[in-house]
Amino acid sequence: MRAKTPKESLTVLTDLVLPGETNYLDNLFGGELLARMDRACSIAARRHSRRIVVTASVNHVAFSKSVPVGSVVTLEAKVSRAFKSSMEVFVDVWIEDRQSGEKTKVNEGIYTFVAVDEIGKPTPIPAIEPETELEKVRFDGALRRKQLSLVLAGKMKASEATELKALFTD
Amino acid sequence: MRAKTPKESLTVLTDLVLPGETNYLDNLFGGELLARMDRACSIAARRHSRRIVVTASVNHVAFSKSVPVGSVVTLEAKVSRAFKSSMEVFVDVWIEDRQSGEKTKVNEGIYTFVAVDEIGKPTPIPAIEPETELEKVRFDGALRRKQLSLVLAGKMKASEATELKALFTD
Amino acid sequence: MRAKTPKESLTVLTDLVLPGETNYLDNLFGGELLARMDRACSIAARRHSRRIVVTASVNHVAFSKSVPVGSVVTLEAKVSRAFKSSMEVFVDVWIEDRQSGEKTKVNEGIYTFVAVDEIGKPTPIPAIEPETELEKVRFDGALRRKQLSLVLAGKMKASEATELKALFTD
Amino acid sequence: MRAKTPKESLTVLTDLVLPGETNYLDNLFGGELLARMDRACSIAARRHSRRIVVTASVNHVAFSKSVPVGSVVTLEAKVSRAFKSSMEVFVDVWIEDRQSGEKTKVNEGIYTFVAVDEIGKPTPIPAIEPETELEKVRFDGALRRKQLSLVLAGKMKASEATELKALFTD
Amino acid sequence: MRAKTPKESLTVLTDLVLPGETNYLDNLFGGELLARMDRACSIAARRHSRRIVVTASVNHVAFSKSVPVGSVVTLEAKVSRAFKSSMEVFVDVWIEDRQSGEKTKVNEGIYTFVAVDEIGKPTPIPAIEPETELEKVRFDGALRRKQLSLVLAGKMKASEATELKALFTD
Amino acid sequence: MRAKTPKESLTVLTDLVLPGETNYLDNLFGGELLARMDRACSIAARRHSRRIVVTASVNHVAFSKSVPVGSVVTLEAKVSRAFKSSMEVFVDVWIEDRQSGEKTKVNEGIYTFVAVDEIGKPTPIPAIEPETELEKVRFDGALRRKQLSLVLAGKMKASEATELKALFTD
Repeated sequence: MRAKTPKESLTVLTDLVLPGETNYLDNLFGGELLARMDRACSIAARRHSRRIVVTASVNHVAFSKSVPVGSVVTLEAKVSRAFKSSMEVFVDVWIEDRQSGEKTKVNEGIYTFVAVDEIGKPTPIPAIEPETELEKVRFDGALRRKQLSLVLAGKMKASEATELKALFTD
Repeated sequence: MRAKTPKESLTVLTDLVLPGETNYLDNLFGGELLARMDRACSIAARRHSRRIVVTASVNHVAFSKSVPVGSVVTLEAKVSRAFKSSMEVFVDVWIEDRQSGEKTKVNEGIYTFVAVDEIGKPTPIPAIEPETELEKVRFDGALRRKQLSLVLAGKMKASEATELKALFTD
Repeated sequence: MRAKTPKESLTVLTDLVLPGETNYLDNLFGGELLARMDRACSIAARRHSRRIVVTASVNHVAFSKSVPVGSVVTLEAKVSRAFKSSMEVFVDVWIEDRQSGEKTKVNEGIYTFVAVDEIGKPTPIPAIEPETELEKVRFDGALRRKQLSLVLAGKMKASEATELKALFTD
Repeated sequence: MRAKTPKESLTVLTDLVLPGETNYLDNLFGGELLARMDRACSIAARRHSRRIVVTASVNHVAFSKSVPVGSVVTLEAKVSRAFKSSMEVFVDVWIEDRQSGEKTKVNEGIYTFVAVDEIGKPTPIPAIEPETELEKVRFDGALRRKQLSLVLAGKMKASEATELKALFTD
Repeated sequence: MRAKTPKESLTVLTDLVLPGETNYLDNLFGGELLARMDRACSIAARRHSRRIVVTASVNHVAFSKSVPVGSVVTLEAKVSRAFKSSMEVFVDVWIEDRQSGEKTKVNEGIYTFVAVDEIGKPTPIPAIEPETELEKVRFDGALRRKQLSLVLAGKMKASEATELKALFTD
Repeated sequence: MRAKTPKESLTVLTDLVLPGETNYLDNLFGGELLARMDRACSIAARRHSRRIVVTASVNHVAFSKSVPVGSVVTLEAKVSRAFKSSMEVFVDVWIEDRQSGEKTKVNEGIYTFVAVDEIGKPTPIPAIEPETELEKVRFDGALRRKQLSLVLAGKMKASEATELKALFTD
């Protein structure tokens, strides 16, 4: 299988925030944003793997700014690293000022998907070859985040998480 | 006001078709697609004008292929021509094959929006300078379509619709 | 097949505008109204043809007035003309004042549907016999609108669109 | 205040059953139907009273037949009787066969609404003058049903519910 | 079949009121609350019977207080009495004050469900043994309410509704 | 401020999975589940703090089993640890077998919320006193997870994350 670049899985979802999707402070409801992020990431994972994909975990989502009703919200999702059959996907969320057109980042999320065949069995996927600086940073961090998930889930001993350990012992 | 290119208003909305958005043939429900197209076009109109925009009319939407549940659907909207305060926006709709990644066009729509100020009064907007061949064709057709709307609405005499008339008398 | 009157396909959809269906100006969101119109028209097309029907195109929708949250909105859809297997459907949209009960027209749309059999093949449908003055005007205009669609889609030469041509050359 | 006929408040809501509104047996979800009935009845109550109306109670809804996905469902709501500021509203629900056009009654509901002024205070409304046989039967039953509600809620002694009592003691 | 207590079917549904679920007074829309109540009651009926259940009727729902947007709403549903294959379910609805945590009852509903087998045939269910005082009151009232439904539906003569009759003649 | 137990913030949200909330494999859509979890956790955070709360981050959500349409899903959310103005909330997700009533855990999530005053400024909240074994384990882990978030976000040096470091160097 030919390795692919993150750019090949780039998925852009630009949409409005309508009143029916807000919380009682008239901002985009957190749960609705999580759902949009999940949809954008799953499309990126599907574009990378050309397979059926299922959400395995949400690894981290940080809400740094609220998104007021009436905003134009843009989600950009790209696969950051591929393992045997699982992929880490990053999604960045922006809003833009109507008058100036200036973009502000409001949110960032990391999701993991698994590619499966028709009967739900995990199936091999192409590797990722990062191109930009940011893509390389995210590619490198993905292994540490994977080890971390395994350690937190009790499926790997902390002593074996060599990549992660280096972070704390160097 | 500096004229702008259609590309500057390009709006991409890629999303899944979920079961809750289908008709009883398990295809994306026509009304739901019209709603997504309206949202994408209104964002393009807003990006061109940097103003509040309201839908004035749907000029034409052709449904050439149905969109099955589970599809990845991509809408690409761009302003095709700007008049004093109104804009014509084209939106093209694609689905892509999961395995081959091949894209198929399923739908195309033409919407008109008006830019307004805070009290709802129409307000001037920048002109459009088309770049690609397709953008030029759509730019040229926009005037004919505008005359046609006015004639059909009884707001212009057929004899005065010079652009449109030429189509039938040459 | 016995010809039918437009009245036999009359479909009335009266409903409220709830806050979850509004845009950020607290008016009924254009896309949501397009979806309701599509549903009402498809029922009218089904009542005329007694067949499965699919949306072929939205020919024109003009938004003349906005519809505030809390409004009672009434859609009235009727088949205006039937061709071999396709039908043109007109839908008129009204709101009514709560205190006086007075009705105001806010919107009008023209949709085209095709009747199909169980495997999706177009199938013949009854003709339309218009009764009222308005029904006759719409019946007559339907042929011009059909030719126009074909010309704009490049499927008919302008010189062959005799009905339409007459509009501009007389 | 001039008395009004039930017909003057007639509200018709014809709509499709889409897959997103079904239960896991692919029939219209009971809760969704209750919501549509509430909206249709509230419009009828508003048309009768020309006031703001709020749901006071659902008195009875009987689900006699299930409504399969893809059905055309018609709700017809009319005020059956008006008291000082409250109204009883009947809603009948029909589906129609696509091929024969035959209508089948699937459901019937009785709701009570109260008309209020801008600050929420109950406000007087016109009386009802029933015209058809069915309207008269429902008008007569309304008083018994009102007494019954009061008795069941402990707000009236059974011995004072004269209309109701007659039903059991005659 | 072992009899069960109401507590064994207790179903708790605590959720927020989001802006997309409100009426134009910014309170939870009556229809949406009826839908939530139906879902909670159907789960209680399923827990009691361990069968597929379908809504047979809504016997009474009283809206005593409105539920403002942003509220935390708690529904508690329990089977109050079981007959051969049908069950009466009571649902109580509460909101709580954010600062004091104090709970206020806003609504109460009575629904009837029928347990069916895979082909939709009514099927026997366990009896109910009420424990608390309130459960006993509701258990006793259930028979009267059942007779009342039958009388109102014309399926039982008033003279045979012995439980109900006693209410008015004693 | 009196410390509180996790139990005092316990929030239970039992609901059905309807067809409109599924993905194209007829399982509950991941994004919809994330939204429900967010709502349940935000109510738990609000019950603990008696304040307005906003989602700060989703720290981890693991999808271990899919949730088929028609399932009864129960979410149980409890605050696991409180810091100055932020809280970690755990949510466990269960489905139950209709016939046996047996519960299966399908999902687990960790969210962080911040309590704010009316103008959005973070505000102090009560401490947590864990009672059960599981509550104690989660309480202890919360500090490590907080340090981890700060390290990953570049807001704390790995060398200062003493709790976390111990995990890898002991």
